[in-house]
Amino acid sequence: MKTEIAQRMKGFSPFYVMELLQRAKQLQAEGRDIVHMEVGEPDFSTPEIIVEASLKYIQMAEVKYTEAAGLPVLRTEISKYYKNTYAVDVDPKRIFITPGASGAFLLALGVTLNPAEEILMADPCYPCNNNFVQLYGGKSKFIGVNANSDYQLTADLIKQNWTKNSRGVLVASPSNPTGTVISEVELGNSIQQVNELAGCFFSDEIYHGLVYGKKANSALEFSDEVFVINSFSKYFSMTGWRIGWLVVPEYFIDPVERLAQNIFISTATHSQYAALAAFTDKNILELEHRKQQFEKRRDFLYENLLRLGFEIAVKPEGAFYIYANCAKFTDDSFQFAKDLLEQQGVAVTPGKDFGDNLSNIHLRFAYTASIAKMTVAIERLERFLCQ
Amino acid sequence: MKTEIAQRMKGFSPFYVMELLQRAKQLQAEGRDIVHMEVGEPDFSTPEIIVEASLKYIQMAEVKYTEAAGLPVLRTEISKYYKNTYAVDVDPKRIFITPGASGAFLLALGVTLNPAEEILMADPCYPCNNNFVQLYGGKSKFIGVNANSDYQLTADLIKQNWTKNSRGVLVASPSNPTGTVISEVELGNSIQQVNELAGCFFSDEIYHGLVYGKKANSALEFSDEVFVINSFSKYFSMTGWRIGWLVVPEYFIDPVERLAQNIFISTATHSQYAALAAFTDKNILELEHRKQQFEKRRDFLYENLLRLGFEIAVKPEGAFYIYANCAKFTDDSFQFAKDLLEQQGVAVTPGKDFGDNLSNIHLRFAYTASIAKMTVAIERLERFLCQ
Repeated sequence: MKTEIAQRMKGFSPFYVMELLQRAKQLQAEGRDIVHMEVGEPDFSTPEIIVEASLKYIQMAEVKYTEAAGLPVLRTEISKYYKNTYAVDVDPKRIFITPGASGAFLLALGVTLNPAEEILMADPCYPCNNNFVQLYGGKSKFIGVNANSDYQLTADLIKQNWTKNSRGVLVASPSNPTGTVISEVELGNSIQQVNELAGCFFSDEIYHGLVYGKKANSALEFSDEVFVINSFSKYFSMTGWRIGWLVVPEYFIDPVERLAQNIFISTATHSQYAALAAFTDKNILELEHRKQQFEKRRDFLYENLLRLGFEIAVKPEGAFYIYANCAKFTDDSFQFAKDLLEQQGVAVTPGKDFGDNLSNIHLRFAYTASIAKMTVAIERLERFLCQ
Repeated sequence: MKTEIAQRMKGFSPFYVMELLQRAKQLQAEGRDIVHMEVGEPDFSTPEIIVEASLKYIQMAEVKYTEAAGLPVLRTEISKYYKNTYAVDVDPKRIFITPGASGAFLLALGVTLNPAEEILMADPCYPCNNNFVQLYGGKSKFIGVNANSDYQLTADLIKQNWTKNSRGVLVASPSNPTGTVISEVELGNSIQQVNELAGCFFSDEIYHGLVYGKKANSALEFSDEVFVINSFSKYFSMTGWRIGWLVVPEYFIDPVERLAQNIFISTATHSQYAALAAFTDKNILELEHRKQQFEKRRDFLYENLLRLGFEIAVKPEGAFYIYANCAKFTDDSFQFAKDLLEQQGVAVTPGKDFGDNLSNIHLRFAYTASIAKMTVAIERLERFLCQ
């Protein structure tokens, strides 16, 4: 057999943090205590009510395939959630249950993106975004963003960067790695701009729910002609269950359904039944309590990073990340992260994982660890900086 | 937004059976009794021991992400399974846990197939095969097969049909829809032929385990330079759990891992822990008992279809399908299937779903229903034919 690997894999961005993760595991195996601030997974366990719903289902029923689009009753629950949370009407038929947000990206780009077409996205952004585009032979057009636009794209940036090869725009709010939220006005303008350009608007809303002191707007508040990617992983703490969803414009229902049938058959059934309990009042109450804890952690980490001399150009308002400028200490944040892990046992993610835009002087800190653990991390970080 | 749908979706083969399924549901809603012989899903529920393992895991632990390649302990179990079942050594590092066989196909073709390259496959075959190829901009080269080669490709057919654009060959044994098994000699020759042509050999082994009166050979018995797709859905009765696996040649480990990280993150964790119980002696005993029941159903259906005048060119030796020639009754098997459903409440799959090779005079009967139910179906079928 030829050892030739498909071309598309050459364009795949690596995860530099994997090298750090492997080393962290090694160190832990040797008995070292490591504080993990690199992990994009909530440390909270799945809420009891969701776990119970899953157990009950598995005990009572047979775990067979569902409809490719997902359980109708779950799609209806999500539709109600849009009504309650954003005051928008979304026909359940436009909602597809997917194996995580990953599955939602596979579908959304699969039905829209032709080879060689471009998707505009912010730099810094989540590395998988580019890789989904690469998968389908497309091109990512990275647009450097900064504090001036809260690290988000704007209608002007979209217009300036749009070419005849552009097919769509991806906005992630709250953003990974910056935690910043796009303003209501800018989101509305951006969607209008993309619609005028006859492009596709992809709104990554997987960190919705985890927004502090304000409310994030869904792209669906402005238009039905958008693709919205969401997930039960973050706000609902359901990472390992692998379940998310995609909202599509009406005329994309048919191709999305055909694609889902073929590449998934359906999403794990016991996860779908578990997710049915996610929207109950009791559960939302629990999740709001957790959100308050995330907010306290954000404040703790934000204040301490500033105190130690990191620059944080925009105070993050959502997700569980702080993207900190470490120019005061290094112009090689990857090496800095390696040394910090090696010497002090604190794992963080190098900016390099999120693009080329000043990434050598940025680090992403995740506050998916308790304040107690982060207190240890900050002490160690302080020691590291004072050497 | 432009309503343009990505080009790749145009090449997607439809599932004609969906039309029948929808109508069957309608009729059921109206109170009609329908015997389902169109369903590619075992009617057996997931074995108790697997269900128990999942419940125990969900109660005891947190359902978090696993490694992208899957739980190391599960990969080791699968490696042992290859040793015990086929007497082959497979390094667990070459085994990737995936969201069903669907996920395995996504990975295997994703790391090998470039746009415009061809994959050779038999006609008739499972419709999703072509659609995975379309997804990546490739081309399916359908090779008409018949009873002469047990509806399987042969080394000669591969050689005759190979062109400079060919990238690989897909063999499914037991085959869906024909249930036929490729012979040991022909499988070995085909793999050797593809290796000489420097192509990729993809072996769909998802119906392994469900082979009657003989043993199917794994492609891994002949070469390490093959991609093997397998699943917990069929033999292990775990459809709704969405879990399968992919074995890859050693030098494809790195790209497959990168692709899995990006497009799945990981496979549902509670399904992976459930699958750990799949290989226990107690469970295999239960599954072998079920296999005997499938064999009895195969015999029942085979004899009755012959008695009614259907032709079955090769007695199927595996899976749970019979691909029957209905030329004696019709040259439009799709219309035949619609009429049979409408008039007698028996649902079967039209040949049209599996290709163009005499598909207008073929029907696929699935024996995923009990003999009691199939007895009713045969009576109704007889009535239908005697009108």
